[in-house]
Amino acid sequence: MRTRPLKVALLGCGVVGSEVARIMTTHADDLAARIGAPVELAGVAVRRPDKVREGIPAELITTDATALVKRGDLDVVVEVIGGIEPARSLITTAFEHGASVVSANKALLAQDGAALHAAAEEHGRDLYYEAAVAGAIPLIRPLRESLAGDKVNRVLGIVNGTTNFILDKMDTTGAGYQEALDEATALGYAEADPTADVEGFDAAAKAAILAGIAFHTRVRLDDVYREGMTEVTAADFASAKEMGCTIKLLAICERAEDGASVTARVHPAMIPLSHPLASVRGAYNAVFVESDASGQLMFYGPGAGGAPTASAVLGDLVAVCRNRLAGATGPGESAYAALPVSPMGEVVTRYHISLDVADKPGVLAQVATVFAEHGVSIDTVRQQGKDGEASLVVVTHRASDAALGGTVEALRKLDTVRGVASIMRVEGE
Amino acid sequence: MRTRPLKVALLGCGVVGSEVARIMTTHADDLAARIGAPVELAGVAVRRPDKVREGIPAELITTDATALVKRGDLDVVVEVIGGIEPARSLITTAFEHGASVVSANKALLAQDGAALHAAAEEHGRDLYYEAAVAGAIPLIRPLRESLAGDKVNRVLGIVNGTTNFILDKMDTTGAGYQEALDEATALGYAEADPTADVEGFDAAAKAAILAGIAFHTRVRLDDVYREGMTEVTAADFASAKEMGCTIKLLAICERAEDGASVTARVHPAMIPLSHPLASVRGAYNAVFVESDASGQLMFYGPGAGGAPTASAVLGDLVAVCRNRLAGATGPGESAYAALPVSPMGEVVTRYHISLDVADKPGVLAQVATVFAEHGVSIDTVRQQGKDGEASLVVVTHRASDAALGGTVEALRKLDTVRGVASIMRVEGE
Repeated sequence: MRTRPLKVALLGCGVVGSEVARIMTTHADDLAARIGAPVELAGVAVRRPDKVREGIPAELITTDATALVKRGDLDVVVEVIGGIEPARSLITTAFEHGASVVSANKALLAQDGAALHAAAEEHGRDLYYEAAVAGAIPLIRPLRESLAGDKVNRVLGIVNGTTNFILDKMDTTGAGYQEALDEATALGYAEADPTADVEGFDAAAKAAILAGIAFHTRVRLDDVYREGMTEVTAADFASAKEMGCTIKLLAICERAEDGASVTARVHPAMIPLSHPLASVRGAYNAVFVESDASGQLMFYGPGAGGAPTASAVLGDLVAVCRNRLAGATGPGESAYAALPVSPMGEVVTRYHISLDVADKPGVLAQVATVFAEHGVSIDTVRQQGKDGEASLVVVTHRASDAALGGTVEALRKLDTVRGVASIMRVEGE
Repeated sequence: MRTRPLKVALLGCGVVGSEVARIMTTHADDLAARIGAPVELAGVAVRRPDKVREGIPAELITTDATALVKRGDLDVVVEVIGGIEPARSLITTAFEHGASVVSANKALLAQDGAALHAAAEEHGRDLYYEAAVAGAIPLIRPLRESLAGDKVNRVLGIVNGTTNFILDKMDTTGAGYQEALDEATALGYAEADPTADVEGFDAAAKAAILAGIAFHTRVRLDDVYREGMTEVTAADFASAKEMGCTIKLLAICERAEDGASVTARVHPAMIPLSHPLASVRGAYNAVFVESDASGQLMFYGPGAGGAPTASAVLGDLVAVCRNRLAGATGPGESAYAALPVSPMGEVVTRYHISLDVADKPGVLAQVATVFAEHGVSIDTVRQQGKDGEASLVVVTHRASDAALGGTVEALRKLDTVRGVASIMRVEGE
């Protein structure tokens, strides 16, 4: 084994960073054996230098992250600050000064992954980011390496633990959205401002990263259709149960049937209870991958948390250090397929639509005519009368989002339709 | 991209080999883009050269596998023959003549993994074998690379599709073992001679490979305790249901609580219905991994079949080719921890024991005394009388296999114990 240590700088020392530092110290011998050389924590950039950080020598702490990444003697920079700046500049500077980078920064990778990969390649360095998607669950490496000889057609993922906790709570207790969110907040599963989670921004960033790797195509955050889950109601769960389904916030990356384009989207959807994703409980994450040769795979585990995310960071750190010793780099960006990313209107799926309608003869015929005029074929209809009002639940065959949108717009104009209570996509069948 | 192709030889062209050849041909452009150079099928060694093999030029077919691996211009040899010889000699010869090797051969890796890894390292070549464990499911790479910075404590796997199909059928239909086996045979899930599957030999080979990688320790097939599932009965499933459990044939690799030794075993076991492995249906495989930092991960997918196994082989082929172009090798054997492998007697778990006893006063006291004398603590007891006979179902707290064995031996000697109807371990709690 080489005795001269590999030097690692840590940018950020919060929940994840402190776990990375702790494991680097307590498992130093194991890491050295697995890498083939010892690793040394060479510096830790933080915002609050006066905070007590157990196990980290005070002389390693600095507030000058830029000076740290410019040292020139670093082998690897681990970025666990999050957000766009200063993370982006620091990573770029790290490459310029000869370090490889391990990052857990989904927002940055989803927005600027191509430019960062280009910088890594220009300087002959690695950029690894397993921790950016679904915490400890190995996903980037299996998609990029294990499935490198296969053709991925669809990725269906529960990639946000906060929203899965809320939806699971609504499903199992009958709670409404606000009540379930309050519990998630009380238990520390939701942040004080839950917007990034419940509006799907976090999941959309992960969808962009997963779609890019799965389809060997650049997919940016702006390419991902996004719909949050704040409007899912207890009534929606009741409808889902009648369909033999539950509701999950899904990140869905799909290759079109003709193979010539891809889509990426995040929205709540009904999935059958028999689908492996339906039984993913609490704050757990899981990603279901459908490929030509391997068929259906699923990867399941904790999608967040300090220790799980640190595990993913350290797996990358070991790989990057091994590459470093071998004088090589691992697989970089693979975007050769360069498939067009289609807009949401071209996505084809099934829909569950609840309408409040007047309780009088001929309404079903009117509604059915609107669906037919827009080329949306109906699978089942269920009518329920209540106090002069009635509800109509329509489940469609597969249709494009654009056709469904046109249908709904026309339905709203019917005198006999009092309102569209909910529209939910049905996936995973 | 490099234009000179990498040369690949295929040893074996059965269910898996023919799929590997087919995908190499039909996806040649994708493989080239992902590798950075084209790959060329340079030769295919078969036993029956006169069989029609669609898509493979006749001039590539040879019956002389030894001459093929000695060519000297091969970059990668893909071994999908299976069995110990001639596979072992061919792989060793391939290394000696400069090729890296991708293998799907679980029996060989479980028996001679250390020697083969040593041969690969001596010649500076790669030995990859993702396809050897659980078909298409990425397991070797996640354990070896993604979890390289973590400490794995337990691997619990359903790694044999045939037996999972049979047990699932018994569970869902109430069928007996023979009836379920007959159906598995009729559907092609079981071979004419199902011994390797139903007696746990196949799962034991996979357990040896998984334990070795998970614990950075050499674990050979002989180190794995093995018990088949041919004696699981419909009555066992009824007992499991009363416990809120189902029965699975599990491969279990564990680190002892003090961390100083490991065990590997294959046997049927009860697991709670709430455990993610309980809902793995039909011929699917899944492996549940518990680690210090990442917590609980599960990997799920098809564990066998031509196309899924070919997907795993091709993933390895891409990785090995990339390494080849970079002039590097991937991670080899990691056995530095060299932990002792403890015998089955030292395994600690819970037990579900059904006894046929005389229906008279004092029997329970006698039985309880025997458990106490052997240091096995009882969790629950249930008595059921039937026609002068009675049954006693005992569920224990955690105890060593040796202590339980001594208990059962002593129970058999009691006059009031007519027979031990079944002993089943309880896992995953």
